[in-house]
Amino acid sequence: MRSITGGGLKSGLPPGSLIHVGIASEEEAQLTVIKFNPDSLHEVELVKPFNLESCIEGDTVSWINFCGIHDIATVAALGERLSIHPLVLEDIVNTRQRPKVEIYEGYIYIVLKMLSYDRVEARLDSEQVSLIMGPGYVVTFQERPGDVFDPVRQRLRAGRGRIRGSGPDYLTYALMDVIVDNYFIALEAIEDQIEGIEDELFSKPSSRLVATIHNLKRVMIVLRKAVWPLREILLGLERGESDVIKTSTVPYFRDVYDHSIQVIDTVESLRDVLSGYLDIYLTSVSNRMNEIMKVLTIMATIFIPLTFIAGIYGMNFDFMPELKWPWAYPALWGVMLVIGGGMIWIFRRKKWL
Amino acid sequence: MRSITGGGLKSGLPPGSLIHVGIASEEEAQLTVIKFNPDSLHEVELVKPFNLESCIEGDTVSWINFCGIHDIATVAALGERLSIHPLVLEDIVNTRQRPKVEIYEGYIYIVLKMLSYDRVEARLDSEQVSLIMGPGYVVTFQERPGDVFDPVRQRLRAGRGRIRGSGPDYLTYALMDVIVDNYFIALEAIEDQIEGIEDELFSKPSSRLVATIHNLKRVMIVLRKAVWPLREILLGLERGESDVIKTSTVPYFRDVYDHSIQVIDTVESLRDVLSGYLDIYLTSVSNRMNEIMKVLTIMATIFIPLTFIAGIYGMNFDFMPELKWPWAYPALWGVMLVIGGGMIWIFRRKKWL
Amino acid sequence: MRSITGGGLKSGLPPGSLIHVGIASEEEAQLTVIKFNPDSLHEVELVKPFNLESCIEGDTVSWINFCGIHDIATVAALGERLSIHPLVLEDIVNTRQRPKVEIYEGYIYIVLKMLSYDRVEARLDSEQVSLIMGPGYVVTFQERPGDVFDPVRQRLRAGRGRIRGSGPDYLTYALMDVIVDNYFIALEAIEDQIEGIEDELFSKPSSRLVATIHNLKRVMIVLRKAVWPLREILLGLERGESDVIKTSTVPYFRDVYDHSIQVIDTVESLRDVLSGYLDIYLTSVSNRMNEIMKVLTIMATIFIPLTFIAGIYGMNFDFMPELKWPWAYPALWGVMLVIGGGMIWIFRRKKWL
Amino acid sequence: MRSITGGGLKSGLPPGSLIHVGIASEEEAQLTVIKFNPDSLHEVELVKPFNLESCIEGDTVSWINFCGIHDIATVAALGERLSIHPLVLEDIVNTRQRPKVEIYEGYIYIVLKMLSYDRVEARLDSEQVSLIMGPGYVVTFQERPGDVFDPVRQRLRAGRGRIRGSGPDYLTYALMDVIVDNYFIALEAIEDQIEGIEDELFSKPSSRLVATIHNLKRVMIVLRKAVWPLREILLGLERGESDVIKTSTVPYFRDVYDHSIQVIDTVESLRDVLSGYLDIYLTSVSNRMNEIMKVLTIMATIFIPLTFIAGIYGMNFDFMPELKWPWAYPALWGVMLVIGGGMIWIFRRKKWL
Amino acid sequence: MRSITGGGLKSGLPPGSLIHVGIASEEEAQLTVIKFNPDSLHEVELVKPFNLESCIEGDTVSWINFCGIHDIATVAALGERLSIHPLVLEDIVNTRQRPKVEIYEGYIYIVLKMLSYDRVEARLDSEQVSLIMGPGYVVTFQERPGDVFDPVRQRLRAGRGRIRGSGPDYLTYALMDVIVDNYFIALEAIEDQIEGIEDELFSKPSSRLVATIHNLKRVMIVLRKAVWPLREILLGLERGESDVIKTSTVPYFRDVYDHSIQVIDTVESLRDVLSGYLDIYLTSVSNRMNEIMKVLTIMATIFIPLTFIAGIYGMNFDFMPELKWPWAYPALWGVMLVIGGGMIWIFRRKKWL
Repeated sequence: MRSITGGGLKSGLPPGSLIHVGIASEEEAQLTVIKFNPDSLHEVELVKPFNLESCIEGDTVSWINFCGIHDIATVAALGERLSIHPLVLEDIVNTRQRPKVEIYEGYIYIVLKMLSYDRVEARLDSEQVSLIMGPGYVVTFQERPGDVFDPVRQRLRAGRGRIRGSGPDYLTYALMDVIVDNYFIALEAIEDQIEGIEDELFSKPSSRLVATIHNLKRVMIVLRKAVWPLREILLGLERGESDVIKTSTVPYFRDVYDHSIQVIDTVESLRDVLSGYLDIYLTSVSNRMNEIMKVLTIMATIFIPLTFIAGIYGMNFDFMPELKWPWAYPALWGVMLVIGGGMIWIFRRKKWL
Repeated sequence: MRSITGGGLKSGLPPGSLIHVGIASEEEAQLTVIKFNPDSLHEVELVKPFNLESCIEGDTVSWINFCGIHDIATVAALGERLSIHPLVLEDIVNTRQRPKVEIYEGYIYIVLKMLSYDRVEARLDSEQVSLIMGPGYVVTFQERPGDVFDPVRQRLRAGRGRIRGSGPDYLTYALMDVIVDNYFIALEAIEDQIEGIEDELFSKPSSRLVATIHNLKRVMIVLRKAVWPLREILLGLERGESDVIKTSTVPYFRDVYDHSIQVIDTVESLRDVLSGYLDIYLTSVSNRMNEIMKVLTIMATIFIPLTFIAGIYGMNFDFMPELKWPWAYPALWGVMLVIGGGMIWIFRRKKWL
Repeated sequence: MRSITGGGLKSGLPPGSLIHVGIASEEEAQLTVIKFNPDSLHEVELVKPFNLESCIEGDTVSWINFCGIHDIATVAALGERLSIHPLVLEDIVNTRQRPKVEIYEGYIYIVLKMLSYDRVEARLDSEQVSLIMGPGYVVTFQERPGDVFDPVRQRLRAGRGRIRGSGPDYLTYALMDVIVDNYFIALEAIEDQIEGIEDELFSKPSSRLVATIHNLKRVMIVLRKAVWPLREILLGLERGESDVIKTSTVPYFRDVYDHSIQVIDTVESLRDVLSGYLDIYLTSVSNRMNEIMKVLTIMATIFIPLTFIAGIYGMNFDFMPELKWPWAYPALWGVMLVIGGGMIWIFRRKKWL
Repeated sequence: MRSITGGGLKSGLPPGSLIHVGIASEEEAQLTVIKFNPDSLHEVELVKPFNLESCIEGDTVSWINFCGIHDIATVAALGERLSIHPLVLEDIVNTRQRPKVEIYEGYIYIVLKMLSYDRVEARLDSEQVSLIMGPGYVVTFQERPGDVFDPVRQRLRAGRGRIRGSGPDYLTYALMDVIVDNYFIALEAIEDQIEGIEDELFSKPSSRLVATIHNLKRVMIVLRKAVWPLREILLGLERGESDVIKTSTVPYFRDVYDHSIQVIDTVESLRDVLSGYLDIYLTSVSNRMNEIMKVLTIMATIFIPLTFIAGIYGMNFDFMPELKWPWAYPALWGVMLVIGGGMIWIFRRKKWL
Repeated sequence: MRSITGGGLKSGLPPGSLIHVGIASEEEAQLTVIKFNPDSLHEVELVKPFNLESCIEGDTVSWINFCGIHDIATVAALGERLSIHPLVLEDIVNTRQRPKVEIYEGYIYIVLKMLSYDRVEARLDSEQVSLIMGPGYVVTFQERPGDVFDPVRQRLRAGRGRIRGSGPDYLTYALMDVIVDNYFIALEAIEDQIEGIEDELFSKPSSRLVATIHNLKRVMIVLRKAVWPLREILLGLERGESDVIKTSTVPYFRDVYDHSIQVIDTVESLRDVLSGYLDIYLTSVSNRMNEIMKVLTIMATIFIPLTFIAGIYGMNFDFMPELKWPWAYPALWGVMLVIGGGMIWIFRRKKWL
């Protein structure tokens, strides 16, 4: 489970100091540039040392995707090339950011979390994605290779929809949209697991289930931290507070906003359901305890008086007239059967049997 | 139980891609048009291929009701005919929408959930209804045939009330009103069931009851997701933020707003009641446990010392003078009765009996 | 217990259809008019058919009190006489309204709940009161005869205070004030009952108490639904959003506002107290269980080993040398006393005795 | 415990009717006037009948302190002398007010609660203090003699600080400041008691503790009702909404505002701590129950099989060959020791011993 | 554990009375001045009596760090030198302040808490830091020597980053930044401890764990009181409400604001986790109880009927034909084995074994 604070902090360094905070990917950093306009599309995978000068060209929109933010030098070079504020660069390489949007003069900086849920290990994997949208370019910074952007790439290549003919704001929308859409996939996986628990909860409650519920609750806490800030972010973008976003793109951001509200709703609903599960577990356990106690009580209550009677006639007193009576033994059996049967009858009436 | 996330997602497609998300109805799509003005009313059931040109006429109000949003092609054709934004069309065919209102230039787009509660299966059925209100027309999109709009149709046919003489805004109000009124019917059914539980809760608490309470809690979670957004939607419409709504119709939307607040209030109250039920169940179970424990303790506490005494005089020591005394046996019975009676007296004083 | 949803719904009728929703009073509808100015007061009890023309006169303030809103025809006639919006009339005869204020041109429509708490049956009776305040008149609509307005009538008759010399806004204030003041009386009755529970809670917790607490919680839920909306209503009136209320009357509405806040505060506090009661009940029950378990454990732990020893010397082996020893029997008694005493000593040290 | 609703209500009287609501002090009403300017200070204790004319003089600030609001006549006379609104006078003599500030033309009316915590009886005593600040005067109304204003009196007499040279607004600040400072003293006393409970909670949880925790929770509810409204009151005063408060005094009200926020924070924190205590109590009780059950189970589990074996060889069958074997008795002891020891070994492994 | 109210209050003194509230450090007060401009840096450690005149010079930025606010005289002298409002000085020497920002004419006053978590004693140490930022100077007041400002000192000495070339607003930012960064360190330490608890919670729940969880919950309450106000403080500074903060520094305050939001998020998440722990503990304890009960019930249920049978044949009736049958004894063993085995089979089916 990813820790809540994050860990691996830097403290007291001057702001703008590029210190990678997070788990450094072991793979080589990758820089891919897709330059497109309505008519053409160029896709280049750069090799180190990256030549950043040609990334952005006048009449095309450039999508610069950089995987491997532990490569501080390249991040710094990109930042210099695009005149990004040092604090933004510092945030990009610090993977403990809270999702946020910051509007600077000439560009917008967005931080999001790319989430995926590992069903087998019941683990929520989170990767920080930073987007910088400026005039004619979008830069995405990822922690490691592998992302959810392939549908966008395919739409770009195929020239389907509005994406090729629109500016960087529409591309930003498209990228945020796939990220948020993937939250639904993670939520569905989590809900499946929750449904699975529910059946087990009634049939055979076990302490392992409590551990699973607890784990899912923690997953929800982490998930919630990732999705709650989306509301404000998208509200900000939808309201078109920045000139960088064209009016025609605003409805698209409103669409992502709607989706993010749905994600938040679902997270809250699933949290409610999980809380209910603990209650069910406790009542389930109480019921079991009751059942066990009932068995014990019935057995003990029937046999304790009978054993006492048997003990009486096991005493060795010289003068116990009953012991001499020939029909005493079968009579005693009769008495015992009446007592036992009476007990059972009482338990039936109390609905214990 | 309908899942909370919804399931059946599309991800990464270009916006405006018409992909039906939801359970496709097996029935043929139906398109019905009611054109009316104060003097006349024409009701047409179109057959495929639908001729959409004649749907809207200058001097009448058209209510176009389309059942079967899995028929993507017709939705797209209708969208083109009325110049609807592609994102709206995408939302119409995606049944996982959160209720919302979106104000576009020239038309308003409203998403609502039509709810019905199946008492037998204790299941909340939800159907998404999209309304588009533009100049001279209202289009309603439903998932499948069968709806709650019959009272509106009857009022239209009979020409009762203001409905024939008013514009599409009043028709929109009338449609939203019957949808919200039906929430009360669902809530009443749910409350009936809750009342039924309450009696059982005190008389015979069972783990089946917990399952029922849990199920109702989930129903409430789904219901809440459907009704909470109504508040904002109707507040927006009541404030007359769009030119499409006439001032004279605003009080009617305020009326629906009041109803939606009442629905929300009721949902919250029922949630409170359900939460209380679990507490009652737990205390009920605790009480039962106590009663069982008391029976066990009373039986054991009375007979354990008596059995011990019987055991003593069942010992085979050669020198046990009591065994020779002729009155020892009846005296022992006396002692035992005193001990047993004393125990019972103590339990009475402790109010255990 | 009055149901939460209300029940008895109308659905799908055209707005403004006067359909009485609620329990129809069996008594005849009553219409009383009090016309007053600083110098004179006329009180008339009208008989059916009501002559409504003379109700309102130029230079007097008329208070028209109508009991029996199930008499739809009279409500409609009154509405026509005073030019009330059809939606308002519909709300007046529907007793399931949420308290609210609506400002129309020329008049204000206020819905309140008149509450009384029946201590014997622990039941909260709620009656809907609609007030319409217009120029020169106040109309009050009640469900059935019997109300809390007598102090206002007496003040009017006696000409005490400002009431005779002020307009309909001051009369409205006076009527709302007695309604809100009566909430305190209901709350006091409820608090008395809660106090009574508290003593019993510690002395003899029973499942009947849980039912009572649960019932009171439901009463609080209903009460809360009636008082929460007051806050907004009175804030609206206090801010003088309507011309119908004179500036000099505003401080009086602020006074009622203060009272309503106090009612809300008290309701919330009592809810907190009731929630605490369930916790106390559960701990009380746990303590009892503990006490019972302790008795059982002490008895069993002392006698089980002793019974075992007695069982040993009740065995019939041919070679058990102890059985022959003359001092074996008294010695065994000694051993048993030591074991029993030791157990008691251990229990004392554990603070179980 | 002071009741939550208050009790002793008036209902239906005309507003401005001076009816004392509360517990009438048995002591005689007292009226003290302190007139001061930077140079001089006059302190007069008036006797009945109070001559109110001389209370306020042109060039001095008068602090009129009146103890004993059950003396309605004097309150009315003071009100007339200072032209106070009848509703304000009504509120002054009604001790069930919620803390509030009301800004009238020419004067400000403030209601506060003076709190003291009686450690011995664990009781929160609350006394209502009304302040009226007008041009050149401050009037304080108390329920009974004895207050927390002595430090202010001493500062006035000694001429220390700004107090003598400032106007009535600064005096108002000084009086509110000592009242709020005394909340901290009450809170400290409560916290001390809470700390005391904590130690006991782990060492010997008893049902008496639950009653104490419950009582403290109720104290917190009452305290909360007294301090929450302070926030708004002081925010209003700090924002200088009234002309009566000079700009130079505003920072002082901000200071009291800060203190009141601290009080609210502390109240909330202590409520959190108290809620936690009930959880601890429940776990403590559960642990005890577990311990008791373990003792019972260990004793029963060890001796039940042994007693069964002894019972076997206590049977009187004619053909039980073991009974004849000379080494059977010691062998049986061996078997029993092995069984008992094995049980103990198992319990050790399960960490029950 | 530091108390929640704080303790050691002053009450009723005139405002501006410099009374140290808190635990007086035993160490001598220290005054250090760092004067710097882009080109040079002078660092002076003053000795008593402090010569405050030379602290501030025209063309340099002075950072005056004062440790030991129990030295009232020096605080007063510094206050006089810089014309600080008496209320601010009073707040500086009162260590019970809530974090806040106050904007005065010409300077800003900020109160923060410097937190450190002692892992061994599980104790949160809190030290109050007051910052006054004016034209050309920043004064920091600490309770005792030892702080978290060393990284800032090093950056100043090294001339790294913007710090030497920027004004007092940037220095203020840098100081607040290290304080907030240190909250993460405290949170990480706490989270580590929480993680440690989790493992133990499932393996061996003990009442000591409950005490630890409770202690951590209290730590979170204290922490929360320190961090929640940060939000408002930094929002105020970020919005540049004061002229003292240059526009170019605003993004830096926004950065600290982001960090403070993250701290608050983490505190809330950890609180959620801790609350979940108590639930887990309770279910863990319930499970243990169940297990114990099961062992007891199994043992008792198997042996109680067997012991009863043995008791029967231990009776001394003269006429018990079974006792004479030669195969009765082995047959009885057979019966007993069948009964015992049957019981075990039933328990297996019930999944108790």
